[in-house]
Amino acid sequence: MATTTPTIAQVCLAAREASLVLATIDGRTRNAALEAMAGALEARSAEILEANARDMDAGVEAGLGASLLDRLKLDEERLAGMAADVRTIASLPDPVGETIERQRLENGLDVRRVRVPLGVVAVVYEARPNVTIDCSALCLKSGNAIVLRGSSTAANSNAVLAHVASEAVSSAGIPAGAISLVGGGDRDELRQLATQDGVIDLIIPRGGEGLKAALKEHATVPVMYAAAGNCHVFVDAGADLDDAVAIVLNAKVQRPSVCNAVETLLVHSGVAAELLPRLLGELRESGVELRVDGRTRALAGDLADTLAEATQEDWATEYHALILAVRVVDSVDEAVEHVNRYGSGHSEAIVTGSEASAQAFTGGVDAACVYVNASTRFTDGAVFGMGAEIGNSTQKLHARGPIGARELTSYKFVIEGSGQVRE
Amino acid sequence: MATTTPTIAQVCLAAREASLVLATIDGRTRNAALEAMAGALEARSAEILEANARDMDAGVEAGLGASLLDRLKLDEERLAGMAADVRTIASLPDPVGETIERQRLENGLDVRRVRVPLGVVAVVYEARPNVTIDCSALCLKSGNAIVLRGSSTAANSNAVLAHVASEAVSSAGIPAGAISLVGGGDRDELRQLATQDGVIDLIIPRGGEGLKAALKEHATVPVMYAAAGNCHVFVDAGADLDDAVAIVLNAKVQRPSVCNAVETLLVHSGVAAELLPRLLGELRESGVELRVDGRTRALAGDLADTLAEATQEDWATEYHALILAVRVVDSVDEAVEHVNRYGSGHSEAIVTGSEASAQAFTGGVDAACVYVNASTRFTDGAVFGMGAEIGNSTQKLHARGPIGARELTSYKFVIEGSGQVRE
Repeated sequence: MATTTPTIAQVCLAAREASLVLATIDGRTRNAALEAMAGALEARSAEILEANARDMDAGVEAGLGASLLDRLKLDEERLAGMAADVRTIASLPDPVGETIERQRLENGLDVRRVRVPLGVVAVVYEARPNVTIDCSALCLKSGNAIVLRGSSTAANSNAVLAHVASEAVSSAGIPAGAISLVGGGDRDELRQLATQDGVIDLIIPRGGEGLKAALKEHATVPVMYAAAGNCHVFVDAGADLDDAVAIVLNAKVQRPSVCNAVETLLVHSGVAAELLPRLLGELRESGVELRVDGRTRALAGDLADTLAEATQEDWATEYHALILAVRVVDSVDEAVEHVNRYGSGHSEAIVTGSEASAQAFTGGVDAACVYVNASTRFTDGAVFGMGAEIGNSTQKLHARGPIGARELTSYKFVIEGSGQVRE
Repeated sequence: MATTTPTIAQVCLAAREASLVLATIDGRTRNAALEAMAGALEARSAEILEANARDMDAGVEAGLGASLLDRLKLDEERLAGMAADVRTIASLPDPVGETIERQRLENGLDVRRVRVPLGVVAVVYEARPNVTIDCSALCLKSGNAIVLRGSSTAANSNAVLAHVASEAVSSAGIPAGAISLVGGGDRDELRQLATQDGVIDLIIPRGGEGLKAALKEHATVPVMYAAAGNCHVFVDAGADLDDAVAIVLNAKVQRPSVCNAVETLLVHSGVAAELLPRLLGELRESGVELRVDGRTRALAGDLADTLAEATQEDWATEYHALILAVRVVDSVDEAVEHVNRYGSGHSEAIVTGSEASAQAFTGGVDAACVYVNASTRFTDGAVFGMGAEIGNSTQKLHARGPIGARELTSYKFVIEGSGQVRE
């Protein structure tokens, strides 16, 4: 029997049809479908791991590096973790149907702003197959249909995961078309996906700068971008120095490859002489390469000769590695100015004992997440109680910071009257 | 003395600088600045009307039509109305600084989602000079800087209005650069404005399809689009027929040129025989041209021979004129399907006596505003208590329906700790 692969436009239209039904399905049914999805991941693990093994073999043959292979790999434990995440998402409050605001106008009209699903969300992602399940679960929780486009590296894993998830939720009363996967092929496909006006409501890219640039060039449907994370920690005059050392070390060293790791340390001149020799020493012992301004070097004591000079480019760079730029500033205002000038609006922290400094920093810094006396490393949907995150937005429109199920909703105005007409 | 006009990039950067200061200015100061703006419109009316007279003279010379000239014209009364709108906006609750949500994590972190301004909003508009003031006032209320780009037709009026507004708010402590106007020249300027990534946070086009198409092609910063309004009224079986007649007539006839006017009437077959002869007669008497399906014609009695046949294209057309398409359907589900297929997601109404039908319609229709037993003509920021509107969104991302001051905000997470680091 001949079968034909549906085009991207056809898949998206089917998703749109499904989304209109999904918008009317109650939270209990959506949660039951999530439970079915979690159960199917466990029950069909052999099938999933077999497909993943084929991707791993192909990856080894293609010479993928160890870290890419690690991100690609699935095993029983990782599958169990995925199922647990789906159950956590099922347990969260239903984001759909909430009355956000209500007013009665003088003419008697009852105006309610009611939370509704966005409709169809497309996620374009690379490497990690668990994204297939995390994103499908968040979309189903929020009543959205999802169109997934993974990378060719994980094609077999993604295909079986999307298939297992889709079958499971269909059996629980969710319309076919609610979860679809399209081929991870060429850029022309991405362009088709990104121009389905009136069909796809949002595209979320989870990948590198090339992917984002391609969407900037071609997309006519809304895209939610996450800029790289050029994050800062500012240590204020009068800060608790033990806290400062612990926070800076954690933000730099605990996992340097992620977007909420710190890239530049700013130190108030009033505390620099006391803090820097100790902190720079500890950073060096943790294997951190330091690039510093002149004032930092002047206070670095024995270390001074071993420190590289920070350039303009260093302030603007997200290293994603064990490298830290360091600068001395004379005030919280100067720190805020530096952060707003070079930061990417992701996660910024102040370490301070002063209420006034904390307010100046949290009020003045233009970023998704602003921390007082805590590490920047907490910016994460799971930490913020969202179960998982479909992305992390550094745009200011729609939603900012971690994107969970509630952030995948819109609202509509429902206006009830008794025959009112406009004069 | 030689002066040089700043480039669009320079104006936008100055607006970005101003927005960072604006974000830290309290609501009382912003409201006082709005009062100063309103007062200046009254005090400097001679200057404003003189500039407007020059635009009017040029418009007459260029052969502008009567309705365009009417939209362009300012007089003492219209200026007083603009000042009153600004004072209304000043009187509304402050949208900035509100804690939207707060939670304490198990590790002791206090996580607050706090409402903040978007930053820099650009508005591109045509003809009506009052938009200069309405949009400036909404942006100032919400702590945003605004970059205005009006049309060349209203260049003198817009220039003096922006200048008067900017001077007034500067005298009240708002940073220079908070309100700017750039020349309404060629499309290349629009392209420059639409690609100020990281500087402009949102562009709102208020104009025709050509403007929107140009932004779809070139914009790399977020744009909030308003689709045309292809709105429907559905009269359910068992509806109050007096209400139905009044609502359909109001929605079509009261102001047919606007986007919340009705373009297609859907009638349940259970009520069509009773309703249609009367309603079609009243519509005809009000000068409405009717384009109908076969079932409507069959019930139209004496009128039947005079009715045009509705084509596929009619269902998809926003007439902006005294024309109405009419179709008979057999259920609320069929009505919902028609609306979701042909509607533009603007304003949709059901006239019904049934709670179940009302729920099926409000739940099933995917639109910004869904009405039960009221005219579609109420979709308007001023009606919804927003003082004015900067636009009306049919997108689902960020904000939907009328866009007032609160819809011009984003949020940031402010996280306060006592030295927490991530394990």
